[in-house]
Amino acid sequence: MLDSFFYPESIAIIGASNNPAKLGYQVFSNLKTFEGEVYPVNIKRDKVQGFKAYKNLGKIRQKVDLAVITVPAKYVPETMRDIGEKGTKSALIISAGFKEVGKGKLNKEIYRIAKKYGVRVIGPNSVGIMNPSQNLNASFVIPAEDGNIALIFQSGGLGAASIYKTLTQNIGLSKFISIGNVIDVDYADLISYLDQDTHSKVILLYMEGISNGRRFLEAAKKCKKPIIGLKGGKGEFGSQAVSSHTGSLAGSYQVYRAAFKQSGIINATNFEELFAMSRAFLMPIPRGQRTAIITNSGGAGVLVSDKIDERGLKIAKFQQQTREKLKSILPDLAAITNPIDTLASARGKEFGKSLKVLLADKNVDIIIVACIVPCFGKITEEEHAREVANIAKGANKPVLTAWLEGEIAEKGRLILNEAGIPCYRTFDEVCSAAYALTKYKKQENK
Amino acid sequence: MLDSFFYPESIAIIGASNNPAKLGYQVFSNLKTFEGEVYPVNIKRDKVQGFKAYKNLGKIRQKVDLAVITVPAKYVPETMRDIGEKGTKSALIISAGFKEVGKGKLNKEIYRIAKKYGVRVIGPNSVGIMNPSQNLNASFVIPAEDGNIALIFQSGGLGAASIYKTLTQNIGLSKFISIGNVIDVDYADLISYLDQDTHSKVILLYMEGISNGRRFLEAAKKCKKPIIGLKGGKGEFGSQAVSSHTGSLAGSYQVYRAAFKQSGIINATNFEELFAMSRAFLMPIPRGQRTAIITNSGGAGVLVSDKIDERGLKIAKFQQQTREKLKSILPDLAAITNPIDTLASARGKEFGKSLKVLLADKNVDIIIVACIVPCFGKITEEEHAREVANIAKGANKPVLTAWLEGEIAEKGRLILNEAGIPCYRTFDEVCSAAYALTKYKKQENK
Repeated sequence: MLDSFFYPESIAIIGASNNPAKLGYQVFSNLKTFEGEVYPVNIKRDKVQGFKAYKNLGKIRQKVDLAVITVPAKYVPETMRDIGEKGTKSALIISAGFKEVGKGKLNKEIYRIAKKYGVRVIGPNSVGIMNPSQNLNASFVIPAEDGNIALIFQSGGLGAASIYKTLTQNIGLSKFISIGNVIDVDYADLISYLDQDTHSKVILLYMEGISNGRRFLEAAKKCKKPIIGLKGGKGEFGSQAVSSHTGSLAGSYQVYRAAFKQSGIINATNFEELFAMSRAFLMPIPRGQRTAIITNSGGAGVLVSDKIDERGLKIAKFQQQTREKLKSILPDLAAITNPIDTLASARGKEFGKSLKVLLADKNVDIIIVACIVPCFGKITEEEHAREVANIAKGANKPVLTAWLEGEIAEKGRLILNEAGIPCYRTFDEVCSAAYALTKYKKQENK
Repeated sequence: MLDSFFYPESIAIIGASNNPAKLGYQVFSNLKTFEGEVYPVNIKRDKVQGFKAYKNLGKIRQKVDLAVITVPAKYVPETMRDIGEKGTKSALIISAGFKEVGKGKLNKEIYRIAKKYGVRVIGPNSVGIMNPSQNLNASFVIPAEDGNIALIFQSGGLGAASIYKTLTQNIGLSKFISIGNVIDVDYADLISYLDQDTHSKVILLYMEGISNGRRFLEAAKKCKKPIIGLKGGKGEFGSQAVSSHTGSLAGSYQVYRAAFKQSGIINATNFEELFAMSRAFLMPIPRGQRTAIITNSGGAGVLVSDKIDERGLKIAKFQQQTREKLKSILPDLAAITNPIDTLASARGKEFGKSLKVLLADKNVDIIIVACIVPCFGKITEEEHAREVANIAKGANKPVLTAWLEGEIAEKGRLILNEAGIPCYRTFDEVCSAAYALTKYKKQENK
């Protein structure tokens, strides 16, 4: 039902501009990659950025599936009327200056007109939407890569930042929605839609406040895909900041946490964790919480163990045969209890062999490989990553990895990420990822 | 008293090797940058890596201030005797295979010999030590940049990782000490030494367990410089990991936390925070905890506010004149309460002017600037960073910044960091930094 937002055949951009300082300039530029029809609408110009422009929607003879609005707030009501008259059923309002500065009246008028014509509205004050699989970038941000993760953001700035983040972390997106001030299409609509969307495997939310909590929670409860949520506005200062930002009520964080838990939304505690957790779902869902660690640094093993404790995961106790096999693979001084410490001198093969043994151990549900990138002797910078990538690919247990530190670890991270094995920069992130996987498992029966 | 470790005039490297797979190869290679004398010692070779080698310490006619030991564990006692006979007073044992695998006897023997001759010992199982100001890199890790931060690490792997981390984060080090298994020189000795060391401004510790807690806490209490500590081995799993790693007892984390607090050590909760906090001390110490935020993204303002709440810092309430000035500087739609939201359209100048106003407000102790790097229109990627760097330089209040996200934010971060204004990649880190500064202030009267 929201398909015409994400899979339109034709788009009109109202307020398309030649002036690079205007939203309508950048949005139209970005829409040029779209494979369907794009019609620039500008009341004053015959041509915009070299393309034939239309004075208004009525002048376009062909059907228009999606209208993207970038004109100033005061012109939006009449634009919405044009959209209704045209028979277009989806409108994305990128224009700002509405509810967030107390202009509730304007919002209500726009909603009334949209409702009258049966137009669904995303926004206003949206940064835009994307569907990378269709080369559709109806936003003023650079395009995301294609992938399986859907983002719904209530903050335009954080939404834009999240695109840059996904690009540097090899994360591909199925959909991006900057939800804006939400006069119509809300979290509940989008969650229900994305649950049906075959491209989306995981749904990420950034939310500051919502007006219809029950609808949201019901949609989340019904959704069969993992949903990871970051709530903005937790304490006193944060709640004040929310009210001056989106003009919405932050609500009690305790209530949100309880509601997230009840409806199976995995709670991310910060911006980085939101993305760290999402990447975990590239891996199979574990049967339990029994976690094993392989590392080449005792200190790394300690810090990962601490985080595993903090996250309430369980420590795997290896089978007898696992210990025996590890003893035959690893040097005498290595630790073969959990965490397995191969020692800094371990080659990639020892990492790979240890991983293989753990994959066969029935007492192990999740494996975390924490590597301090070898920095001496004949060991190459990437051999550990290659071995782990080879063994972890297609494994029936989740293998999550952290490669530290700095530039020397980049190569290994790239090898693992490109092989589809999530590789993180910090111990916190890899453990958050493991935690998220176990939380999803619990809600499978919901 | 530990000066001959960090400011030696001459060094002997015992076990210097031609074989790149051996510790003695890399350590000798790294020592070549040292400006004083370096004597390779090898029982079998006349030349090592092209340099004249000595059969043993006795063959060196000149005095040797520091002996660096890389020979296998079993040869260390006789090496220590040679060191004692030579009159060398400082020995760094990089060789491994001692206490961590239950060879306590060997440790005791080495200690007995060292004591007899009055030799001070760092290690065994140390990755090495560095003093970048002297181009001294007695380790098998790449050299750190010169700077003001001293690192003491109980884990070799994490110590090595920390060097790579400092290199990518523009952090310069005054001293690096991989403390190893601590048969002699311990945290207390090093803290007392670094407190006197004019190059060191901040001391970072990673610690898993200590044998003499009281000595440590007394040294920390006396130390006038900020000490930031990360404790490894907090919960059940982590404590087990510690005992199989350094062979020490992790002890109760509650006890550590209380002890840290009592002796004024700032508690870092993870590896990243340790470094994030250290960089804060490039800035002046704030008078209080009243924090102000400047951002160009409402969402960023919300997330930073949440973290400020979590950290227990206070929200600054601006003076009347501040609000008036901000009103005249910023556009109508901007938020001029705390956090200040300049809106995404703000130019660099608006950031700079807002910062100037806050620096003059008596109700503001700490300023956090959180920027989502502008990604549209005529705004350049670095103008906000330049303006903030210009105004923050030499300010009498701490200005801490976070620039997000991905590659587009790199330029701004570089400009700020090079200007000496700490710029972070995450909201958590910038708030941890602010927190650390307020914690130090509290202990000034200790």
